[in-house]
Amino acid sequence: MDIANYMQQLGRQARDASRATARASTAAKNTALLTMAAAIRERRAELLAANAADVAEARANGLDAAMIDRLTLTEKGVEAMAMGVEQVAALPDPIGEITDMKRRPSGIQVGKMRVPLGVVGIIYEARPNVTADAAALCLKSGNAAILRGGKEALRANQAIAACVRAGLTAGGLPATAVQVVETTDREAVSQLVAMPEYVDVIVPRGGKGLIERVSRDARVPVIKHLDGNCHVYVDDFADATKALRILENAKTQRLGTCNTAESLLIARAVAVSLAPTLCAMLTAKGVEIRGCAETMSLVPQAVAATDDDYYTEYLAAIISVKIVAGVDEAIAHINKYSSAHTEAIVTENYTHAMRFLREVDSASVMVNASTRFADGFEFGLGAEIGISTDKFHARGPVGLEGLTSQKWIVLGDGEVRA
Amino acid sequence: MDIANYMQQLGRQARDASRATARASTAAKNTALLTMAAAIRERRAELLAANAADVAEARANGLDAAMIDRLTLTEKGVEAMAMGVEQVAALPDPIGEITDMKRRPSGIQVGKMRVPLGVVGIIYEARPNVTADAAALCLKSGNAAILRGGKEALRANQAIAACVRAGLTAGGLPATAVQVVETTDREAVSQLVAMPEYVDVIVPRGGKGLIERVSRDARVPVIKHLDGNCHVYVDDFADATKALRILENAKTQRLGTCNTAESLLIARAVAVSLAPTLCAMLTAKGVEIRGCAETMSLVPQAVAATDDDYYTEYLAAIISVKIVAGVDEAIAHINKYSSAHTEAIVTENYTHAMRFLREVDSASVMVNASTRFADGFEFGLGAEIGISTDKFHARGPVGLEGLTSQKWIVLGDGEVRA
Repeated sequence: MDIANYMQQLGRQARDASRATARASTAAKNTALLTMAAAIRERRAELLAANAADVAEARANGLDAAMIDRLTLTEKGVEAMAMGVEQVAALPDPIGEITDMKRRPSGIQVGKMRVPLGVVGIIYEARPNVTADAAALCLKSGNAAILRGGKEALRANQAIAACVRAGLTAGGLPATAVQVVETTDREAVSQLVAMPEYVDVIVPRGGKGLIERVSRDARVPVIKHLDGNCHVYVDDFADATKALRILENAKTQRLGTCNTAESLLIARAVAVSLAPTLCAMLTAKGVEIRGCAETMSLVPQAVAATDDDYYTEYLAAIISVKIVAGVDEAIAHINKYSSAHTEAIVTENYTHAMRFLREVDSASVMVNASTRFADGFEFGLGAEIGISTDKFHARGPVGLEGLTSQKWIVLGDGEVRA
Repeated sequence: MDIANYMQQLGRQARDASRATARASTAAKNTALLTMAAAIRERRAELLAANAADVAEARANGLDAAMIDRLTLTEKGVEAMAMGVEQVAALPDPIGEITDMKRRPSGIQVGKMRVPLGVVGIIYEARPNVTADAAALCLKSGNAAILRGGKEALRANQAIAACVRAGLTAGGLPATAVQVVETTDREAVSQLVAMPEYVDVIVPRGGKGLIERVSRDARVPVIKHLDGNCHVYVDDFADATKALRILENAKTQRLGTCNTAESLLIARAVAVSLAPTLCAMLTAKGVEIRGCAETMSLVPQAVAATDDDYYTEYLAAIISVKIVAGVDEAIAHINKYSSAHTEAIVTENYTHAMRFLREVDSASVMVNASTRFADGFEFGLGAEIGISTDKFHARGPVGLEGLTSQKWIVLGDGEVRA
């Protein structure tokens, strides 16, 4: 198979199909999505059989347990996939929204119209449910999509793709509006990220290795998420009860998510009273404390943190702790060490809260709330394409809007420029 | 001079300074801008002398007349530069704007705060006024800037940079908030566009060659403008008077601007009546007509257009003309041949107007108005960083907002995730 040729063909077809998805009515897109969801439910047995074959091959190839877990579809998983597609159908259509129409002295009226980006390339790993999820999000936002899933999940992805096509047909949309890459050759990814004439944006979903590789090779914009080295700063004006509750939730509710706190800063004025209590809670939950010298003097169970610790996203039962002079040092520390994902201050002081909100240069900045809220659903986006740690185009949790752009529109009555 | 080291140092300094510009008050930024403008006026003689030395050297080096013209500063040019900076001071401050705060079922309140991008790199050619203009726009939007002007303009750029520094000092801002690259080595540009740790976005301002080179080498996002192959489509429901007036303005008001029309499409139903009149007007204005076979049969003075003509931004007294079946073919033609800059339909038909607005995939789409309106000032942005032909982040005329991003903010009262 000539991979370059094959990918060019998918790209051309996607670009053509994107004209149709861009002008598709909300009703047509929703019909496609609801039919897609129904097809997923109806063909449940087929999907599970395809997935079982994928899993058997993965086991034979010696894939690790975590990978097998991500790969495996259950009856419940198939139902969740269908419901996810229905939820996207229920979201308001972002396309065509006209805003900010203002009349200018020249007589023209100028404003913006929300439009699709065009063609979205999604690159993901073992989870087959991403196929349905990504297809639904791209279609609802008026884009065509090229989906490149993990090679382990090829059979399930193809079975899901057939459901997607059934939906597209029902909505009167071209079958090429969502295409699943049928080759497992790695060269297909290199091609996909380097066709600016056919692909407008790439969304990689998966581990850091995948995302770094895609970002390095991409010749089109990438909506991406790297580390989540999130901080909780307990200010000298913190309410002790809120601090304890927020830290517990931010660090220990789930250890492996990107919005989990990895670092705790405590203002010196309250360190003597609060550091032992906060750290005792963490220790009781099995979290290892790596602290600065001051922390170690207050918290006997703490071990010494290196400078590297403060840069680290552990995704594990470890936290770095530092005693800081106050809000200034906290902000400076975060802006130096953080991955700019999510940070929270616990304080009752208005000015400290406002300064933290304004000066911390991260995608999500919170006052008196757990970092775990940094999430498309918790933020009310209804769906999440991913979380961006970039500043350009989309920042933080990205919903359907992240897959759109705005063009300028002008309504005139024969005006010309003077 | 070790260019890599030097640029890294500028980058580090800019990143540090960007923390100060990000939190600077509106008053501090405006004081800096107004002092900068005053310094430009006061040091007029100095600026003109520095520029005269640049021009003398450029002449000695045999630079062409157009380049000398762009390089030359006049008394009027210096005054315009000062007034431009004052106009930026008068614009509303985009930074800190809080929007869309919504209460969620969890109890938190979530919304967005507008923030600077961080460090902006501007790469430009001979025009020294860009130094003042770019410094003002970056500062007002809370960014630090690294400015790399043309080597022909180094003396004037350094003199303007001194005025900028006087302003920064008056506003209590670090002098490194706006830095002018002091070396004319080309390697400095290669470094500037490839320091994602210090530079958040690059804005190239100049010819297509510069922009293509920068885009190819950049490892950070680029706000860029390539071709302006703009279309006027005269629909079968066009008002003949509006069509004539709009085409005349769009094509002949200025031949060399990016929003000048380069291609005329006419619906077949009105071609017999309108093509001769429209083309007679163009011919009378000295514009060469390159048409399809049908055009040639209706317009004796037309010569044959090649397929390449329809892709071409002439920036000259030439236009390509094609007779099309109607709005469908016009949209398809534009989406194929256009550079996605600006397109206009002339029509009295509501549905054709709406379809053109929605389906034409260009940065600015107009009904019954001249393409020449595609401009930051005409659109009411108050200032223009540039015009983007990309869809990502900023599209079409880009004002101060294009140099900003939005972060999520969360206001809580001790909420944790369930």
